[in-house]
Amino acid sequence: MCQGFKFAGIASGLKKDGRKDLGLIVSERPATVAGVFTRNQVKAAPVLLDMERITSGICQAVIVNSGNANCCTGENGMRDAVAMGNWTANRLNIEDELVLVASTGVIGEPLAIDRIQQAVPDLVKALDPAGISDFAEAIMTTDTVPKMVSQKGEMDGKQFTVTGVAKGAGMIRPDMATLLCFVMTDVAAEPALLKEMLMTTTNRTLNRITIDGDTSTNDTALLLANGLCGAAVKGDATQKVFQDTLEAVLLSLGKQLVKDGEGATKLVEIIVQGAKSDSAARQIADTVAHSNLVKTALFGEDANWGRVLGAVGRAGVPVQTEDIDIFFADVRMVQNGMGCGQKVEAEATRVLKRQEFAITIDLKGGSGKASVFTCDFSIDYVKINADYRS
Amino acid sequence: MCQGFKFAGIASGLKKDGRKDLGLIVSERPATVAGVFTRNQVKAAPVLLDMERITSGICQAVIVNSGNANCCTGENGMRDAVAMGNWTANRLNIEDELVLVASTGVIGEPLAIDRIQQAVPDLVKALDPAGISDFAEAIMTTDTVPKMVSQKGEMDGKQFTVTGVAKGAGMIRPDMATLLCFVMTDVAAEPALLKEMLMTTTNRTLNRITIDGDTSTNDTALLLANGLCGAAVKGDATQKVFQDTLEAVLLSLGKQLVKDGEGATKLVEIIVQGAKSDSAARQIADTVAHSNLVKTALFGEDANWGRVLGAVGRAGVPVQTEDIDIFFADVRMVQNGMGCGQKVEAEATRVLKRQEFAITIDLKGGSGKASVFTCDFSIDYVKINADYRS
Repeated sequence: MCQGFKFAGIASGLKKDGRKDLGLIVSERPATVAGVFTRNQVKAAPVLLDMERITSGICQAVIVNSGNANCCTGENGMRDAVAMGNWTANRLNIEDELVLVASTGVIGEPLAIDRIQQAVPDLVKALDPAGISDFAEAIMTTDTVPKMVSQKGEMDGKQFTVTGVAKGAGMIRPDMATLLCFVMTDVAAEPALLKEMLMTTTNRTLNRITIDGDTSTNDTALLLANGLCGAAVKGDATQKVFQDTLEAVLLSLGKQLVKDGEGATKLVEIIVQGAKSDSAARQIADTVAHSNLVKTALFGEDANWGRVLGAVGRAGVPVQTEDIDIFFADVRMVQNGMGCGQKVEAEATRVLKRQEFAITIDLKGGSGKASVFTCDFSIDYVKINADYRS
Repeated sequence: MCQGFKFAGIASGLKKDGRKDLGLIVSERPATVAGVFTRNQVKAAPVLLDMERITSGICQAVIVNSGNANCCTGENGMRDAVAMGNWTANRLNIEDELVLVASTGVIGEPLAIDRIQQAVPDLVKALDPAGISDFAEAIMTTDTVPKMVSQKGEMDGKQFTVTGVAKGAGMIRPDMATLLCFVMTDVAAEPALLKEMLMTTTNRTLNRITIDGDTSTNDTALLLANGLCGAAVKGDATQKVFQDTLEAVLLSLGKQLVKDGEGATKLVEIIVQGAKSDSAARQIADTVAHSNLVKTALFGEDANWGRVLGAVGRAGVPVQTEDIDIFFADVRMVQNGMGCGQKVEAEATRVLKRQEFAITIDLKGGSGKASVFTCDFSIDYVKINADYRS
């Protein structure tokens, strides 16, 4: 586990069913911090608060509630976000500005802030270096499992750790940190460098996942570095080591998120290669990954490559249909724009029954490539989202 | 009914369950013709054939099959599309080039062209001025009801008729004729003018509907004008009369299509007003109309305005959250970016139970406006599309 970090997660009564809904991360000493936030123009109060506070580059604690997004709640919402942070700072005996705040849940309902106020003392008491599972549970909404991962590395002869925890499940789209994600490390790094590394790595990981194509109003990814392992990221070599480790952590979290997407039964990587450019490949991969017709066919375990090709054709990137190959795992279903016939159907159906596989689209028109992780679109997605507020 | 047109629809065996799957429209004399076709770069063989033939501006017959899209079928597919047309021309004793062809159904499977060949004589025999319901049935795929409408108008003291028939149900997105749609009229009009009127009117009608955001490979809308009523569209006054009638027909068909969208239980108009421009309003309306979270909430009859506002915020158009009002029918749910509280929930829930209503988003920032028709996203949509090929 990451040195010098403690975690807690308890039930404060925000969730109707008594599940954990309030979490806290505290670093033994002030950490440098970087963040990426939702690009949705409708931003929740805690997002607005964090975007302001994070400019200091320093943070020592993060308080997070689930069950309510504290979004579209006006001045009261901002007052509540500030209050959550202040009560926490007060109990921890640190400055208010060292606390960041995050919320996730229903949009537009007032936060039951009195419950949080009452719960903060217990929350602080519950802090424990091994409390990360409690924290991970406390930030879940429609997630069915908590998402955590820890990865070790070595830098300047010292072992360091990167630990990440995230929640997702719905309103997930590849558009800068579409979720709540908290990453802790015990290396030291300047805030500006931390931010650069977080942005670069997010683009390679969290921005490559999609569940339903909606971007949340509350997306927040924070990276805290407290330096307690004694090593510092300085110069290209250490930066590479750290960034590789961070990438492994964020990619693991991203895949955990898609796998546990609302109603999802499959994790599918959409790989596009042979495009004119990486961005053209990405545009096609995104279109296929978001197609409801592709996603429902995946749920039905139907190797309906016509829908994949249909999505390729409407992606807005020039393609030569007669050059395109499509593979389900290693089974070629389409060669030069035409189906490979009934003989490969049985093989493809076996692939579709797996919980994880890749669909590869080869345009054979260049060296651009990209890949995106998506899930299937199930009856349960509709059930979950038809009844979300009730 | 439109003068001088006959229709037929029979079962040729392309559909496994014996439903009608082959349709024919014939005009007594060659008609002028205009068409709009899918913007998907992957185009079915009949679409490619029609795009070439329609440059003549003249057409006398259209043969349509359902049950197979004849798409991604290579040279054989084009040979089959030409053959379907030629057998029809031969039976009707007209030139091959006067026949247009359309197909709809599964992508990527070879067409059972022998069944069509055997059925063409019966199809021609079945032609009847009152046969339009049979034709409408024969072009259905996952549609549950046939879509037709007829509208009369007066021009130069003569009565004219515009009759339309369409199929839709899935792979529907507002992007130039996302469906099969055939419109007949007994006025006369030059091909270039016909095309201009069809394009303008399509943008105001068929391009304002969405079901699932996927664009088909086979979309075709044709407008045939045989002049048999004795009136001609010439000059602004007659053009306005005709275009208004055409617009009424296409809007009715568009709404019928959305209402019968795969699994749909509701027809919902998304109205955006107070935008900086019409195109900005349209971009927001499209984003809301395509949001899976909005659409599943509609299915659940949940007045979850937070999802509507969330979709507005990610539409890529600058908005001032604190100015936005949102109405479900005439019930204001959001005022100046904040929820109007529990007191309006009961009223909104009554609106949500209706089969048809509008959601109005007022940005209060200009005079731009737009509206789009969408449907809800149901469990049945997933069921239909998980098992489509089996």
